[in-house]
Amino acid sequence: MKAVVYHGPGVIKLDETPKPSLLEATDAIIRVTKTTICGTDLAILKGGVPSVSSGRIIGHEGVGVVEAVGEGVRHFKVGDKVIISCITSCGSCENCRRGIPSNCVDGGWILGNTIDGCQAEFVRVPFADNGLYHIPDIIGEEVALMLSDIVPTGSEVGVMNSDVQFGDVVAIVGAGPVGLAALLAVQFFSPAKVIVVDLDEYRLALAAKLGATNIINNRDGQAVAKIMELTNGHGVDAAIEAVGHPLTCKLVQEIIAVGGTIANIGVYSQSAELHKESLWVKNVTIRMGVVNTTTIPLLLNTILGGKLDPGQLITHRMPFGEIIKAYELFANAGREKAVKIVLDLNSLQSCSEDDLVERIVKRLLEQTAAH
Amino acid sequence: MKAVVYHGPGVIKLDETPKPSLLEATDAIIRVTKTTICGTDLAILKGGVPSVSSGRIIGHEGVGVVEAVGEGVRHFKVGDKVIISCITSCGSCENCRRGIPSNCVDGGWILGNTIDGCQAEFVRVPFADNGLYHIPDIIGEEVALMLSDIVPTGSEVGVMNSDVQFGDVVAIVGAGPVGLAALLAVQFFSPAKVIVVDLDEYRLALAAKLGATNIINNRDGQAVAKIMELTNGHGVDAAIEAVGHPLTCKLVQEIIAVGGTIANIGVYSQSAELHKESLWVKNVTIRMGVVNTTTIPLLLNTILGGKLDPGQLITHRMPFGEIIKAYELFANAGREKAVKIVLDLNSLQSCSEDDLVERIVKRLLEQTAAH
Amino acid sequence: MKAVVYHGPGVIKLDETPKPSLLEATDAIIRVTKTTICGTDLAILKGGVPSVSSGRIIGHEGVGVVEAVGEGVRHFKVGDKVIISCITSCGSCENCRRGIPSNCVDGGWILGNTIDGCQAEFVRVPFADNGLYHIPDIIGEEVALMLSDIVPTGSEVGVMNSDVQFGDVVAIVGAGPVGLAALLAVQFFSPAKVIVVDLDEYRLALAAKLGATNIINNRDGQAVAKIMELTNGHGVDAAIEAVGHPLTCKLVQEIIAVGGTIANIGVYSQSAELHKESLWVKNVTIRMGVVNTTTIPLLLNTILGGKLDPGQLITHRMPFGEIIKAYELFANAGREKAVKIVLDLNSLQSCSEDDLVERIVKRLLEQTAAH
Amino acid sequence: MKAVVYHGPGVIKLDETPKPSLLEATDAIIRVTKTTICGTDLAILKGGVPSVSSGRIIGHEGVGVVEAVGEGVRHFKVGDKVIISCITSCGSCENCRRGIPSNCVDGGWILGNTIDGCQAEFVRVPFADNGLYHIPDIIGEEVALMLSDIVPTGSEVGVMNSDVQFGDVVAIVGAGPVGLAALLAVQFFSPAKVIVVDLDEYRLALAAKLGATNIINNRDGQAVAKIMELTNGHGVDAAIEAVGHPLTCKLVQEIIAVGGTIANIGVYSQSAELHKESLWVKNVTIRMGVVNTTTIPLLLNTILGGKLDPGQLITHRMPFGEIIKAYELFANAGREKAVKIVLDLNSLQSCSEDDLVERIVKRLLEQTAAH
Repeated sequence: MKAVVYHGPGVIKLDETPKPSLLEATDAIIRVTKTTICGTDLAILKGGVPSVSSGRIIGHEGVGVVEAVGEGVRHFKVGDKVIISCITSCGSCENCRRGIPSNCVDGGWILGNTIDGCQAEFVRVPFADNGLYHIPDIIGEEVALMLSDIVPTGSEVGVMNSDVQFGDVVAIVGAGPVGLAALLAVQFFSPAKVIVVDLDEYRLALAAKLGATNIINNRDGQAVAKIMELTNGHGVDAAIEAVGHPLTCKLVQEIIAVGGTIANIGVYSQSAELHKESLWVKNVTIRMGVVNTTTIPLLLNTILGGKLDPGQLITHRMPFGEIIKAYELFANAGREKAVKIVLDLNSLQSCSEDDLVERIVKRLLEQTAAH
Repeated sequence: MKAVVYHGPGVIKLDETPKPSLLEATDAIIRVTKTTICGTDLAILKGGVPSVSSGRIIGHEGVGVVEAVGEGVRHFKVGDKVIISCITSCGSCENCRRGIPSNCVDGGWILGNTIDGCQAEFVRVPFADNGLYHIPDIIGEEVALMLSDIVPTGSEVGVMNSDVQFGDVVAIVGAGPVGLAALLAVQFFSPAKVIVVDLDEYRLALAAKLGATNIINNRDGQAVAKIMELTNGHGVDAAIEAVGHPLTCKLVQEIIAVGGTIANIGVYSQSAELHKESLWVKNVTIRMGVVNTTTIPLLLNTILGGKLDPGQLITHRMPFGEIIKAYELFANAGREKAVKIVLDLNSLQSCSEDDLVERIVKRLLEQTAAH
Repeated sequence: MKAVVYHGPGVIKLDETPKPSLLEATDAIIRVTKTTICGTDLAILKGGVPSVSSGRIIGHEGVGVVEAVGEGVRHFKVGDKVIISCITSCGSCENCRRGIPSNCVDGGWILGNTIDGCQAEFVRVPFADNGLYHIPDIIGEEVALMLSDIVPTGSEVGVMNSDVQFGDVVAIVGAGPVGLAALLAVQFFSPAKVIVVDLDEYRLALAAKLGATNIINNRDGQAVAKIMELTNGHGVDAAIEAVGHPLTCKLVQEIIAVGGTIANIGVYSQSAELHKESLWVKNVTIRMGVVNTTTIPLLLNTILGGKLDPGQLITHRMPFGEIIKAYELFANAGREKAVKIVLDLNSLQSCSEDDLVERIVKRLLEQTAAH
Repeated sequence: MKAVVYHGPGVIKLDETPKPSLLEATDAIIRVTKTTICGTDLAILKGGVPSVSSGRIIGHEGVGVVEAVGEGVRHFKVGDKVIISCITSCGSCENCRRGIPSNCVDGGWILGNTIDGCQAEFVRVPFADNGLYHIPDIIGEEVALMLSDIVPTGSEVGVMNSDVQFGDVVAIVGAGPVGLAALLAVQFFSPAKVIVVDLDEYRLALAAKLGATNIINNRDGQAVAKIMELTNGHGVDAAIEAVGHPLTCKLVQEIIAVGGTIANIGVYSQSAELHKESLWVKNVTIRMGVVNTTTIPLLLNTILGGKLDPGQLITHRMPFGEIIKAYELFANAGREKAVKIVLDLNSLQSCSEDDLVERIVKRLLEQTAAH
């Protein structure tokens, strides 16, 4: 099968690899129909995630169709349309039982990290009963794909961790994919104002379209002053940091109001300065974390209820055969006006005729082998 | 001044009464500009609220202009436009400090109950710093009037007490004023479905207009069956009982899902049956209470943020001189298609010329006396 | 093997039954070393639990040693010493994921109810990874046995559901096993006063020994008056109802303070009266439910930390061969001064020599068969 | 009257100053009977608190007797025995209404900071209804004095902010007065282990006496390794930082477990490093803040219930006339084995005969003047 393989810092290739098979009774094999690229995948590509070794199939977001299930899988059967959670969880270790499956002792974020991932025609999903979610018929694949990681991350690590409530003023610093996902999710809680800060005009315009009540381009370094003016000097009740840079970490500390909460989204690789000297007197809470994806069922309901359209995050659609090009595009997301790029594995548009024939033959052979 | 006075069961009159004066340093006198009638006022009229004695000016909802303040009032000055909270609270007793001002040992719901109320040209508000809220310039009087009682009650005793979260299915049983206020407020939390149950077609149509995703007329007694069908047999995550009848108390117990919460809004005068034999196994929570009105600042922000328009609850506007007629209309709210009736004290439309002259003279004399 | 079998209303017998075997990959077979009798078992005996059919092995509390595990069991191996949770949970259904395993769609309270239970030499535990807990070496079997059901029930359904906090006044109505378990657990939260109400002097004396600050015998019907006096007329911040009788349901409603919470423990078979007319004005919360047993790990830690000794609940120890006699004794718990009776399956005291020989031979044959 | 006056960095004197008088209707004048010195007072003395100007009477902890009340004071009368909260709060500003009186817009920590404080014979307490608490007869003055600041700070900013629950493992880093106060309060929640880390053997021995289950002297820099060993590599569920040094800020980040919470107690004057690169994956929460003292009523109940003895924090008792000597002693708290020093204003032991005569005459003259 085709899969994106990491070959050490700076090198990924769309390789032909063996199709995965069931290893444990609780595994499922998913035929991936759509996948996408996360900022973390770029970090892997740069060599910034040491746990990823050379030869690894990367990618941790995907939707698809169940191809095979181990005999211990109880809630899914061949042919089911599913969301693949970016988090693998056993459901019975101490952290899973405490409601923190992101830190499952036998799982967590391992897909496309310590085990092969989703940027492939097929993927093995361990503990399938906990790592897959049924896609209701009425919800499209692309929309569902946004629930693999980006929308739950915005919703849980950004919004829920920020304790926002109706009538609050919220700032989201960073209008990249996860910041925009948080922007969609924060509206579940009906804040009075949602201020989005970024350096890119296109992303700010998109933020305004997706529900930001105020957008601030901080190229002039005046964001703190402007937010203080917008809030009569109080600052914001909730601040969501969705960049990860020391300067944005500083910014959220400068704008937080008395009793406020700062939620940090992101995969941090360096420390930041914690300004206790100004924060301690303000009774402030700071949270950070990995997504648990436990809100996927609620997010599906919210889509069904017409309160969320995560399809708004999709700016590009490309056939899976062009994923390396998609990586290049995503690496220049600002310039390319890219948020989420859907890679389509159903589509064969990019395939040469030879590819197509080869693919058909391969599938036939697989089917024969299975009988 | 003109005021609605209770003269024992079945009798209220628009009487001429003395204008109130400051009794304590923390009092304010408010010139009421708009008031409205609550279901509880009808209960008083029927003689059903024993704490209300004959001679009492009733009414606990109002907006107006500060006419005078005691020297201990710190946050309000003459001329300020204010919302009068239906709850009086000292801010320093044990219940106030615990965040339950509705049970203030020197306050609670006393306006129009044990002290003179708001259906009058002027009203004395004790502990004015805790019982008044500034109306931002941009918010109209009518809209602000809805925050005296009905919207905070829907929001706090209905919605917040029901623990609703995004993606949930909620049922509101009863589409009277408080049920519809809960309907507005429940949408702050982005439930997937909001099912409204009533017996009146007009109110159900209004509910649909105000955001209900499903409306059910229970004249056929099939509401439970219909809700179970709508929820695939699970029932609702949150049920808000906004009628107070034993049958609706039973209904919410029949539709609540595993882990769900029932919130009861209303002034109950009789007990209900608690079906522990079916509820215990479902891990259910039941709450009831008096509004604290502590969400008024958040609700004001939410209006300013464009997420709430409580003006949608107003069906009728009448001059204050016609308030007795308004009571009659409100007593037949279903037939008259009435939800909230705004009584306007600014308007002099209903005044005869004689009334008008008398009124002008009186005001002049008062002003003279004040100098 | 020997097992307590239900033969219809009024009849249980210690029968010879087939030893259970693994049915699913996630099953474990536990050799029970100690078991006990719950009030619910008495309800079954009386025919009051219709889901229990004739021929069922009853009992849902036990500790033992893992005898066999299915290949899908990951956290337990043959020889491990374990607590058997009274709750069976799959860990992946919607209710398990929401943190309500007591309502697992494929589990819940099924042991000794809809599947064979623990009052037997061996028991099959489905979803063993979620239904078993390792017993630390330092903790004795008898103490661990109290964590199968009674102490988590007191802790979760009683204490945690009552929102008690340090400095509060708590009342526990009913000093039977579960009331006394709640008494042990409520002390985790350092209430200022714990008032225990019962009709039995022995149990009240035991309550005083186990930490009650005030005990009240309500034979004179003066408990409400006495509690109001003890609390300067405020009532109690948290009330735990551990009887299930309509009169005790009424009592907790009469003594609850403003802002207080009532937690109902127990398996209710009839409805109760909910006094909304007096409770609504007090901002009261009422909860009821089935134990999730998710606190077992915390309870084990608490025992290890010296803050809990559930062995204090044990009043009687008998060999398993005398369990029918133990049922008789437990059915007269008040008169017999019985709280929890430990039935010992290690002990062979009650075996006749013939029994002993038969048993040894049977075990040898089983071992032979296994090879 | 005698009072400790700040005369710029490095200089405090026990001066003769005018007795304070009522300025507002909501003021009370308290005759201080006992006061104590806080670490913050030492920071003031060093010139480290710029808001304190020369000439200020310092001190923010005290108990005493109500000497006079403004006419707006409702809950206190002359002669009442009271605790003076270190926090002044109006009860009606936005922050007070939100439950954050520590950030009252007209109050907060102002006593002995921006207004004259408690290390004096008399002190004016603004908003007396919110800033004073009645001392029950049964509770001694010294014990009550500990509730002015140190015990609520340990309880709220340390323990409650750390989300500790029964069965948890907690570390308290720093066994100074506030760390030891947190140690007392953390036991309200029945953690399984309470590990106290310090560099001073005396304080660690005291910690062991006050309830620490494990004490670690970190002179060898091995605290992290030792804590990891004690917790099987998991780290601690809750970490309370009670020193304020960058090294201890680092330490708590190194020992916190997955899903854990770090609570920072203290008046920080510099920033610290936030190790997001290791914390983000652990789903960690960090809190900091000023005490609200809203738990004083619960703490009083807890003392009455026999669950707390804050008198255990008192190591020294001195007459108020020796307070300058007490400052010297407290500045060398480690060497002097000092935790809390009670300064007694009732005592006249240290007065010379001349002082005594002068004092008696002054009091007589005051009484004459009052008539």
